[in-house]
Amino acid sequence: MTISLAHLGPIGTYSESAAIFYGKWLKINQKQDFLLCPQPSISSALNSVISEKVDFAIVPIENSIEGTVNITLDTLWQQKNLKIMRGFTIPIIHCLLSCNENLKNIKTVYSHPQALGQCQQWLKLNLPQVQLIPSNSTTEALKLLPQDSTSAAISSAKAAELYHLPILFSAINDRPDNCTRFLVVGRQTNQTGSHISLAFSLEKNSSGALVKALQVFAERDINLSKIESRPTKKSLGEYLFFLELEGGLQDSKVQEAIAILKQYAEEVNIFGNYSFIAN
Amino acid sequence: MTISLAHLGPIGTYSESAAIFYGKWLKINQKQDFLLCPQPSISSALNSVISEKVDFAIVPIENSIEGTVNITLDTLWQQKNLKIMRGFTIPIIHCLLSCNENLKNIKTVYSHPQALGQCQQWLKLNLPQVQLIPSNSTTEALKLLPQDSTSAAISSAKAAELYHLPILFSAINDRPDNCTRFLVVGRQTNQTGSHISLAFSLEKNSSGALVKALQVFAERDINLSKIESRPTKKSLGEYLFFLELEGGLQDSKVQEAIAILKQYAEEVNIFGNYSFIAN
Repeated sequence: MTISLAHLGPIGTYSESAAIFYGKWLKINQKQDFLLCPQPSISSALNSVISEKVDFAIVPIENSIEGTVNITLDTLWQQKNLKIMRGFTIPIIHCLLSCNENLKNIKTVYSHPQALGQCQQWLKLNLPQVQLIPSNSTTEALKLLPQDSTSAAISSAKAAELYHLPILFSAINDRPDNCTRFLVVGRQTNQTGSHISLAFSLEKNSSGALVKALQVFAERDINLSKIESRPTKKSLGEYLFFLELEGGLQDSKVQEAIAILKQYAEEVNIFGNYSFIAN
Repeated sequence: MTISLAHLGPIGTYSESAAIFYGKWLKINQKQDFLLCPQPSISSALNSVISEKVDFAIVPIENSIEGTVNITLDTLWQQKNLKIMRGFTIPIIHCLLSCNENLKNIKTVYSHPQALGQCQQWLKLNLPQVQLIPSNSTTEALKLLPQDSTSAAISSAKAAELYHLPILFSAINDRPDNCTRFLVVGRQTNQTGSHISLAFSLEKNSSGALVKALQVFAERDINLSKIESRPTKKSLGEYLFFLELEGGLQDSKVQEAIAILKQYAEEVNIFGNYSFIAN
């Protein structure tokens, strides 16, 4: 059986590298072949899971520098039937690509907003005068480079090879340990794994209500590895809270905590119980 | 005395509207004139306060649909000497601008990523096939429109007027009550006001530590109007927590809570005590 994997394309993106990483893991561990299905956006990658065009979507959830990828959280909340199957982290090493060898002649730098954000100190120091132009992916603007010798792009070494573009500088990310966590998103719920992701909304966003909801886990020694708030999109000041817990859905103290959380919360949505694949 | 206000430019952006709103408030309430100083980015607007080139920066902090403006939070944390002086909210009404009257002929839509995010449902329904191209501001791409009749942009009615561009559709934001909160950022600390903004980092990001830090406020009936996490940028899974409290820095129970928070937290940074200007 061949497993189809949707990801943010085109070829050469970090999302493609992540999908290949998971595809190879599937091949070794589950003796399954994989097929890459590049998509124009993260939300279309997730939507292709809902419409059953693909088996899984491989989507970024969080970067160590730029933080949460909002579109992934928002789509998980809105599309109740998307489930997290696994997680894994890949290192991100950004390169400056250009057909112009002289840094002084570069006037514009293209890349995905997250990549521009991850290299902001390097850019400020080395290219303080350039115009930064956000693009839909780290590879989208690469085809423009040969036509315009005053332009550069931030992308991966792999993309440089694929698009036959010279690398001017390597590892230009502000932190050497820059990495991005990806999720494998499907349609079925796992019932076992080391981590649980869920989100909830509160009827009244008072400090009391949020602290009570978090205490439910603290009192049972359930460790919270992440908390993130997102707007409900209804009115300013109303939030959803996304939690990542350490534990399994079959554990009775986790079941008890979730049952109590449901009393405090307006809505609770469990995205799945999953484990992380080690690199 | 003339007060200089830095904001994300060029002319016609929502940040310019926000700066004018605050400038008019200054004129009426403090009998002071104002001067607009448009900047190429939100971080350069904030940096011009630090370098004392301007008196204040007017920067977006949160939109009711797209959530937090990360660059504003990150810069407040990194630049310890920036202080929040006031807050206010302005309504955001997006329009589709194009020199082409026929929606069917539009192939690309330009705008700031936040504006594209705020109109995503309208775009999906009315322009499902177009390519969405992110730009540095809602007005940056407007000069391209007369040259390319297959392009459109999402911007304000005011920008349409300034750039002499036709409005094809008005109020295309997915929620009619779309609004953005702006902050007035300066170099002095207020000691009075209805709200306090602060952020803290924890030595160990365990559920226990975060809940304890939040309980400090809950136990003293200090209401938390906002909580937001951002990565420390050091390592994946390490966060900073940004809180907005209801209260004043001169209130003894607030002083006590902050003193106790400092025992739990690795670092606490108070951004200011301020009030919101009503519309």
